[in-house]
Amino acid sequence: MRPVKDLLSHARDAARGLSRSADAGRNAALEAIARALDESRAPILAANAEDLAAARRAGISEALADRLGIGGGRFQGIIDSVREVIALPDPLSETRELGERPNGLRVLKRRVPLGVLAVIYESRPNVTVEAASLAIKSGNAVILRGGREALRSNAALVSAIRSGVERASLPADCVQLVEDPSRDLVVELLGSRGRLDLAIARGGSELMAMVDACAQVPVMRHGQGITHLFVDESADALMAQRIVVNAKTQRPGVCNALETLLLHPANLETGAWEGIAKALVGGGVQLRADPEAGKALQRAGISWVAATAADWDTEFLSLTLAVRTVASLDAALAHIAEHGTHHTASIVTGDRANAERFLREVDASCVLWNASTRFNDGGELGLGSEMGISTSKMHAFGPMGLRELTAEKFVVYGAGQVRS
Amino acid sequence: MRPVKDLLSHARDAARGLSRSADAGRNAALEAIARALDESRAPILAANAEDLAAARRAGISEALADRLGIGGGRFQGIIDSVREVIALPDPLSETRELGERPNGLRVLKRRVPLGVLAVIYESRPNVTVEAASLAIKSGNAVILRGGREALRSNAALVSAIRSGVERASLPADCVQLVEDPSRDLVVELLGSRGRLDLAIARGGSELMAMVDACAQVPVMRHGQGITHLFVDESADALMAQRIVVNAKTQRPGVCNALETLLLHPANLETGAWEGIAKALVGGGVQLRADPEAGKALQRAGISWVAATAADWDTEFLSLTLAVRTVASLDAALAHIAEHGTHHTASIVTGDRANAERFLREVDASCVLWNASTRFNDGGELGLGSEMGISTSKMHAFGPMGLRELTAEKFVVYGAGQVRS
Repeated sequence: MRPVKDLLSHARDAARGLSRSADAGRNAALEAIARALDESRAPILAANAEDLAAARRAGISEALADRLGIGGGRFQGIIDSVREVIALPDPLSETRELGERPNGLRVLKRRVPLGVLAVIYESRPNVTVEAASLAIKSGNAVILRGGREALRSNAALVSAIRSGVERASLPADCVQLVEDPSRDLVVELLGSRGRLDLAIARGGSELMAMVDACAQVPVMRHGQGITHLFVDESADALMAQRIVVNAKTQRPGVCNALETLLLHPANLETGAWEGIAKALVGGGVQLRADPEAGKALQRAGISWVAATAADWDTEFLSLTLAVRTVASLDAALAHIAEHGTHHTASIVTGDRANAERFLREVDASCVLWNASTRFNDGGELGLGSEMGISTSKMHAFGPMGLRELTAEKFVVYGAGQVRS
Repeated sequence: MRPVKDLLSHARDAARGLSRSADAGRNAALEAIARALDESRAPILAANAEDLAAARRAGISEALADRLGIGGGRFQGIIDSVREVIALPDPLSETRELGERPNGLRVLKRRVPLGVLAVIYESRPNVTVEAASLAIKSGNAVILRGGREALRSNAALVSAIRSGVERASLPADCVQLVEDPSRDLVVELLGSRGRLDLAIARGGSELMAMVDACAQVPVMRHGQGITHLFVDESADALMAQRIVVNAKTQRPGVCNALETLLLHPANLETGAWEGIAKALVGGGVQLRADPEAGKALQRAGISWVAATAADWDTEFLSLTLAVRTVASLDAALAHIAEHGTHHTASIVTGDRANAERFLREVDASCVLWNASTRFNDGGELGLGSEMGISTSKMHAFGPMGLRELTAEKFVVYGAGQVRS
């Protein structure tokens, strides 16, 4: 494998080549990638089977193995995902006219690629293809560093991707793979100030600690998702039940799944909470409730455990839900301001004024009214594909699509103007 | 002075207060600030005179003293700058409809403040007022840390600003001053991960080295401005002369002043270069030329010195200009790609195709055709006021106005939708 500094210099050259390409050329490269993946189906699936077998021998969890495998219909899904990116609008064709200045200068902003990206991610081979497709479509060169369990799969995928890019006469080094799983190379990438334009970090707290300690380049991170849902006084009880159950149980291991339910006290008296709780427990959820919500469960004979202070700051990523009674919308907003991670928050209410206050005041990348927290997702929000969900507010906030992989530069048309 | 952690927690509370304010309330606070500054004119100017006297005793340069002084008409200019910010459009009223999803969810993006900003800047008291005004208008709390020479002036200004904010019933802690000039506090601010949303760093290489070494929060920086201007084969000779002289000499000490002139060889034969050089030397400019451009100067009896390789990477910030002959537009683009700092680049040409290639391919925050590099400035480009010029492409690229002090969150209106 090339040393990191060579990966970066090759990527820089490739990025300059890409910056001269047109959308049609980048789409042709994506189509060539889709075809090359199709042609290399056998070696890719063989490599993936080897990865899976090795991972199982090493005793990884079934959940991890499930994400690692790309057999069955999944491989076709990966190829389809490339064609979905082709169909997205070209982010680089966007220009914003800022108008003509009094001296006659015409000023506009034009979208430009960021340059060289690095994506550090889990052992999910589908991300390899999605990240490469989004990078090429947005005119960026990308260095991929996936999880070590997926190394053979990624090598086979990237080999096909590179041959596709070359066939379309773009530089193969638009997409490079870090084939050495050592952490040192991640540290080196994160420290490559001036040579790496953006690192996208997806992963657990260990990776985030490494980012905190080492990053000297801009980083967009998938932060923790301690997501909240507030059931207001005027909520429709059945709607609240449907949304809460979906937010918590539809896929509990992901970042936009619900972690803390906030209840207006009215829900304890109307039986709304009892209905929600029964549905949750029926779905296998363990409730960790504050005394007030717990007492209502007690009365209804629903099992629960007492919440501790730590529960308000925990991302369970499982079928456990923290439940807290809050006296008012203000108290709900205060709880979210204290314990939220700027990820996702939803309010279920029939009161428009309360909804608008919630949507305005909650500082989260996605705020929802009468809808499940699970909708904070690039595909669901209409971005097409996504590179992850940013919980920092700089540059991108929420799902990162093609536009979030670009910047805008000022373009000025003059006729000899000088400054006085 | 409050410890940094208290500054940050007070700023956080103030930011929550600001997030509930309307544009009219923020404008009322700015108007109250303008009035409070006017009423405190005498103590502020007295504090500034003390700063100036102390700085002169310490032997600062006249250029520095010139930036420190706010006497004469300048104080009124500072008050006027607040009212100019009032007149700018509210960045927080911007929403972008992303349309309705097939399941009926209505998705939009709404601009939100970043939260808590810190601005670390030179000994320029006018920046204190501009930064505070831009922060309040964009709904952000700000912690100001100006140069030590301006400490008395800044304390007097911030005292007036805070009294204005309070009179308008917004939290005074929207604007706080770091009154201890020690570097340790800057290091502490830059390390305040999770509590400071953005640091804006304006200053020299020493500050930038500190940012490199310590920053754990997002930073927007004024980087070095090694700006380029390419005089193409088909340039109008007189236009080129006028633009080059303006770009180099109108204010040589600022970041958008020209540092390297690139010449197509045709200009050496037509006499265009001779005309440009004479005008530059007449304006007091010292030319550091490559052998080819130098030979033409020799022939014309114009004084010059030989450029060294280091000159292509030097931000002179003075009446010195590096000059290089490049065989073609391609060679000019290659030189800029190697030596530019992503700040500003201009082309003077009569050839539209060459201009469009230059505007497209040069990776700089502002690219210009037939206009002076000095136009890369928030006021000149129509942003109104600016917080600085970002040379990183993340979040902001080029002059940072109000919009660049905000982010966009996703806002979703549902009717009970859950994810399937």
